[in-house]
Amino acid sequence: MENKKGLVFSGARPTGRQHLGNLLGAIQNYVGLQQDYDCIYSIVDIHALTTVETTVDLKQNCLEMALDWLAAGINPDQSIMFVQSHVPQVMELHTILSMMVSLGKLTDLPTFKEKVRMHPNNVNYGLVGYPVLMSADILLYKANAVPVGIDQAPHLEFTREVVRTFNYRVGKQVLVEPQMKVTQFTKVMGLDGVNKMSKSLDNEIEIAADAETTRKRVMTMVTDTQRIRRTDPGNPDVCNVFSFHKMFSSQAEVDTIEQECRSAGIGCVDCKKKLAVNLNNSLEPLRSRRHEFESKPDQVWEILYDGADRARKIADQTMLEVREAVGLALYRQ
Amino acid sequence: MENKKGLVFSGARPTGRQHLGNLLGAIQNYVGLQQDYDCIYSIVDIHALTTVETTVDLKQNCLEMALDWLAAGINPDQSIMFVQSHVPQVMELHTILSMMVSLGKLTDLPTFKEKVRMHPNNVNYGLVGYPVLMSADILLYKANAVPVGIDQAPHLEFTREVVRTFNYRVGKQVLVEPQMKVTQFTKVMGLDGVNKMSKSLDNEIEIAADAETTRKRVMTMVTDTQRIRRTDPGNPDVCNVFSFHKMFSSQAEVDTIEQECRSAGIGCVDCKKKLAVNLNNSLEPLRSRRHEFESKPDQVWEILYDGADRARKIADQTMLEVREAVGLALYRQ
Ligand code: SF4
Ligand code: SF4
Repeated sequence: MENKKGLVFSGARPTGRQHLGNLLGAIQNYVGLQQDYDCIYSIVDIHALTTVETTVDLKQNCLEMALDWLAAGINPDQSIMFVQSHVPQVMELHTILSMMVSLGKLTDLPTFKEKVRMHPNNVNYGLVGYPVLMSADILLYKANAVPVGIDQAPHLEFTREVVRTFNYRVGKQVLVEPQMKVTQFTKVMGLDGVNKMSKSLDNEIEIAADAETTRKRVMTMVTDTQRIRRTDPGNPDVCNVFSFHKMFSSQAEVDTIEQECRSAGIGCVDCKKKLAVNLNNSLEPLRSRRHEFESKPDQVWEILYDGADRARKIADQTMLEVREAVGLALYRQ
Repeated sequence: MENKKGLVFSGARPTGRQHLGNLLGAIQNYVGLQQDYDCIYSIVDIHALTTVETTVDLKQNCLEMALDWLAAGINPDQSIMFVQSHVPQVMELHTILSMMVSLGKLTDLPTFKEKVRMHPNNVNYGLVGYPVLMSADILLYKANAVPVGIDQAPHLEFTREVVRTFNYRVGKQVLVEPQMKVTQFTKVMGLDGVNKMSKSLDNEIEIAADAETTRKRVMTMVTDTQRIRRTDPGNPDVCNVFSFHKMFSSQAEVDTIEQECRSAGIGCVDCKKKLAVNLNNSLEPLRSRRHEFESKPDQVWEILYDGADRARKIADQTMLEVREAVGLALYRQ
């Protein structure tokens, strides 16, 4: 890889087909970072094993996610994109780091407490260790920067602490403290206008959806709930449709809609029709790229395998240094 | 490997040069099992990473342990002996299993509580997960039987539970429930006669010690503490030297000593001299085998590498089945 501003690592759970929330919240950020950084993007399938439900469609979910990443513009010639479990070295590093990490620190992390609340009957050992595996993901590639939302900051701080503990213990600078690249992830509300867009709430629009499905979904969007009759003036500031216009329509059109909504010059149905047209126009290039890749799933897997090969080279080097540093007897050199 | 009564797996921490307690308590048992079982003996170096102190001499300790195993009669043409970290698949299995293991079950294990008492300032995540890594060791090779002392029984029961949970969850018989081969490990007391033989108490006799050192160590042994003067009759039943005679002297000699001790016919110094002679005679073949291997450390490492190669073949097959069973996307097939 060339040396740009440094190496960015980010991992995302294989949640299958991505929606506009993922696209605007994370994927476009991934795409943009390619400009200035060498980027490694991992589909973290091992993390998904903590809950039984996710494993049934694990393979397909990895593929769908990769398709959306490619569609959105992640360039596999430039960036490394791969499936986490294809570079098993991460599990080696996880195991070795787990020997040096305090249990209390893990159970004190706010996200652990949150997860215990969500899965009270499944507090498994791996759930506690999630930040250790996440740390291994980042440290295996000696990433310099990790894009994180502010809620993930304690996890990255934990990773940085792991680095300091490890390097101090072995008396050498082996692992690299990643910088926090605090990122303002765009929060996209779902069709209901009140919850974050999410597959589990069925309030999402998928990147992969066709134009007609997208149009229909847009037409179900909740608008300004105070605007009852067509003749009532609306308030775009509280309308999720308007938020979408700001993301997908031209500035001129946004200005017109804002005005006409407030004066009851435009009805919500027409307003949504316009949004559907603009959204479909915006998504069209992504969809056609996606279609192309969809028709050649083997090629997508090859892209992921190739990414794993490139990632593994870096990982092997790091693991050699880690093994040497902790004093393990090295296998035949 | 041939198919005998089944496959035995056992792992031992790399504690360096082994002493008579290790020899009679564990290693001779390992040697004996080769008769009836295919055996895999692992020097579990990753387990040793939980405490900083042990890692400094980790490499040398692995070698010394291997030397003693070879000296005692572990046959590398027949059995697999290898260093745990040379088959990193065990860390993969550890990580995957950790996703399916309840934290509460781990912290409830009696040995965990014991360890917390011993290392109160170092309750690390890996310490909790020790039984998971131990399970991975056993399950990676689909061992049918594991020799365990009665105090290790809860750990093996834990491993069996892991198998049932895993197989139930994936709906297939992938992992194999190992049978507990409850073994009466000979407990050897140290030179002080009151504590178990142990390196940390400096009350041990090393297998590797030369005849003169061994003789000197024997002469320091504590005898029947009630026997003050040479003319006092002794009580062999409470004398550790006598216990050693029962292990290393002929039955005829044991009978004579018992009688002469009780009648003050033999003094403790002479009694220990006899023991030293017999002990040195017993250990002589081991020592000479050890010397031979000591002079060719590269050959010993080759034996361990070769063991790792053979172990890795089994491990690769198991991991393929495990990955498939949990639904991970497989790397290029
Ligand atoms: S006209 Fe458009 S912006 Fe105004 S309330 Fe209706 S949907 Fe929202
Ligand atoms: S004579 Fe031998 S057996 Fe008797 S007390 Fe002395 S050392 Fe022990």
